[in-house]
Amino acid sequence: MKKHNFSAGPSILPASVMERASEAIKELDGIGLSLIEISHRSKEFIAIMDKAQALALELTGLTDKGYQALFLQGGASTQFLMAAINLMKTKAGYINTGAWSDKAIKEAKRYGEVVEIASSKDQNFNYIPKGAEIPSNLDYLHITTNNTIFGTQFHHLPETNVPLIADMSSDIFSREIDYSAFDLFYAGAQKNMGPAGTTLVIVKDSLLEQMNKDVPSMLSYAIHADKGSMFNTPPVFAIYTSMLTLEWLKGQGGIKAIEKHNTTKAQLIYDEIDRNTAFEGFAAKEDRSFMNATFNLAEGVDGTLFDKLWNQTDISGLKGHRSVGGYRASIYNALPLASVHQLVEVMQQFEKSI
Amino acid sequence: MKKHNFSAGPSILPASVMERASEAIKELDGIGLSLIEISHRSKEFIAIMDKAQALALELTGLTDKGYQALFLQGGASTQFLMAAINLMKTKAGYINTGAWSDKAIKEAKRYGEVVEIASSKDQNFNYIPKGAEIPSNLDYLHITTNNTIFGTQFHHLPETNVPLIADMSSDIFSREIDYSAFDLFYAGAQKNMGPAGTTLVIVKDSLLEQMNKDVPSMLSYAIHADKGSMFNTPPVFAIYTSMLTLEWLKGQGGIKAIEKHNTTKAQLIYDEIDRNTAFEGFAAKEDRSFMNATFNLAEGVDGTLFDKLWNQTDISGLKGHRSVGGYRASIYNALPLASVHQLVEVMQQFEKSI
Repeated sequence: MKKHNFSAGPSILPASVMERASEAIKELDGIGLSLIEISHRSKEFIAIMDKAQALALELTGLTDKGYQALFLQGGASTQFLMAAINLMKTKAGYINTGAWSDKAIKEAKRYGEVVEIASSKDQNFNYIPKGAEIPSNLDYLHITTNNTIFGTQFHHLPETNVPLIADMSSDIFSREIDYSAFDLFYAGAQKNMGPAGTTLVIVKDSLLEQMNKDVPSMLSYAIHADKGSMFNTPPVFAIYTSMLTLEWLKGQGGIKAIEKHNTTKAQLIYDEIDRNTAFEGFAAKEDRSFMNATFNLAEGVDGTLFDKLWNQTDISGLKGHRSVGGYRASIYNALPLASVHQLVEVMQQFEKSI
Repeated sequence: MKKHNFSAGPSILPASVMERASEAIKELDGIGLSLIEISHRSKEFIAIMDKAQALALELTGLTDKGYQALFLQGGASTQFLMAAINLMKTKAGYINTGAWSDKAIKEAKRYGEVVEIASSKDQNFNYIPKGAEIPSNLDYLHITTNNTIFGTQFHHLPETNVPLIADMSSDIFSREIDYSAFDLFYAGAQKNMGPAGTTLVIVKDSLLEQMNKDVPSMLSYAIHADKGSMFNTPPVFAIYTSMLTLEWLKGQGGIKAIEKHNTTKAQLIYDEIDRNTAFEGFAAKEDRSFMNATFNLAEGVDGTLFDKLWNQTDISGLKGHRSVGGYRASIYNALPLASVHQLVEVMQQFEKSI
């Protein structure tokens, strides 16, 4: 039945995860109750939460490295606010690589001075700015590691001595990077981790200690950490399904194995974009995202037939974001290679027809 | 397979709702994709959101009455903060009827003066304070309509000319009250509406217009209302399942019919508490909650056998909150009458044994 799901998010999850999540709604592990009707204080849910947190640290190589994993609500949009309200003393640096960085900057300005270290706004965010000097007197530096809308990605992290904070909503768990380079990183679940409805925050203990004290309870990392992400009722289903997805990832061989899979998929689609005369890539080649491939029709090419072809072959979610136009193939962890082959085939078929 | 689920929340949902939610995780309405892997901007999810919002207004009798329904994240705990940051100009009144009111007060104090109009703290919150004079110069009055922990409930709303705000997390959609008496009311989904992970806010348009302007985006009712609860990625699964539950409630005959059902259940359990010499009720009789019946063992009675009996008969979630002790039977909308009969039977069996 399944479509080839290139949706940018919420997006494809492993078939086995959806199967198990569906079962748990009927009955969780033979306990005579559904996952969604048990108390979050039950031993069953506490075990789920513990496992999800442990897997998040294990997969990023941060077990016993002085980090904590929190499962919160409110998406990256709430993190824009939380990062600033907890960490801003005087001024913070932001690298502006697109719409989401822009939003993070807007929220941070309420709490102090924002230094825009670098920006790629001058070219509609089609590249990652590099080599900017990062002042050493910042409270923190914030980056967006992958830019879903524009299809760009940091392939080298900026070097800095100030705490490094990252929005990793669309590339967490997709590639081997040095996660210990970050002092805090966060991700809405709905790309590589699970369904919409929970947000993973991984934070260094030493950073927690330096945070502002006078923060509303629900916005305080310290309170959520102190309560083990149970200060208030957590989003049970989203956390359970995230736990299943992390378990699946571990079973696949972890981040090292999935990165190989993701690289194969990305090369396949980008090779076709570069070869195919009907299309042109949007992002600068060296900054291309391995999660979201953005491309437009070549000048003068009418895409009506292409749209018809991909719709006919059960490809879904390929439409580009309005600020870029054209197409966006989101090729997250769970997307099978076969789906990329299908897309490439349709791109080739279209090229022949024009 | 099912247990008799008296959990205080997350809590029992209708069996048909869990069945349909489980199916939607596999595939949503024959579209070839799971509910949890489609874009929140898809026509399918937009229809779900629209329907959930429309049902929330319809069931509370507020369709075309100048109200909006929002589906947000963060639970009532986030609403404690949002109510104050959006509405507090100088001072607000709070009636303190328990732990949740207390938390609401704590958050509100950040934004202005809190006048504690009345409190039942002097008797461990076992009653609802009545008759307090409500100043007319408050920015708003905040109440907690039902107190899950203590098993008390407002059976008469305070009369006031200032905007009335209510935390209805544990009794929304359970009884016929004049919902138009409120200017804003909110509820975490995980009692009578759906699974944990979304929060319903129903707000009067005229109140939206008077709100503070300089509020962080994710905390602004005005922004969420303006964006139709899609300012950021909404918790798709929790909203879908809430929509199913509201649809189920409408099919049952709406709030009028469910109130009758709830009253029958409440009378049954309270009659037994009052009759049975092994137990005594916790809350003042006139203020008893029709959602959470709290009771303790009578003086000198050892509950070991009772605990054994209810566990043996597949009763689940009966343990009282630590601040009250004893037992709590949460008898939300979806709990069948048969479960209450089962509990009463076990209470009678226990009484005979002592």
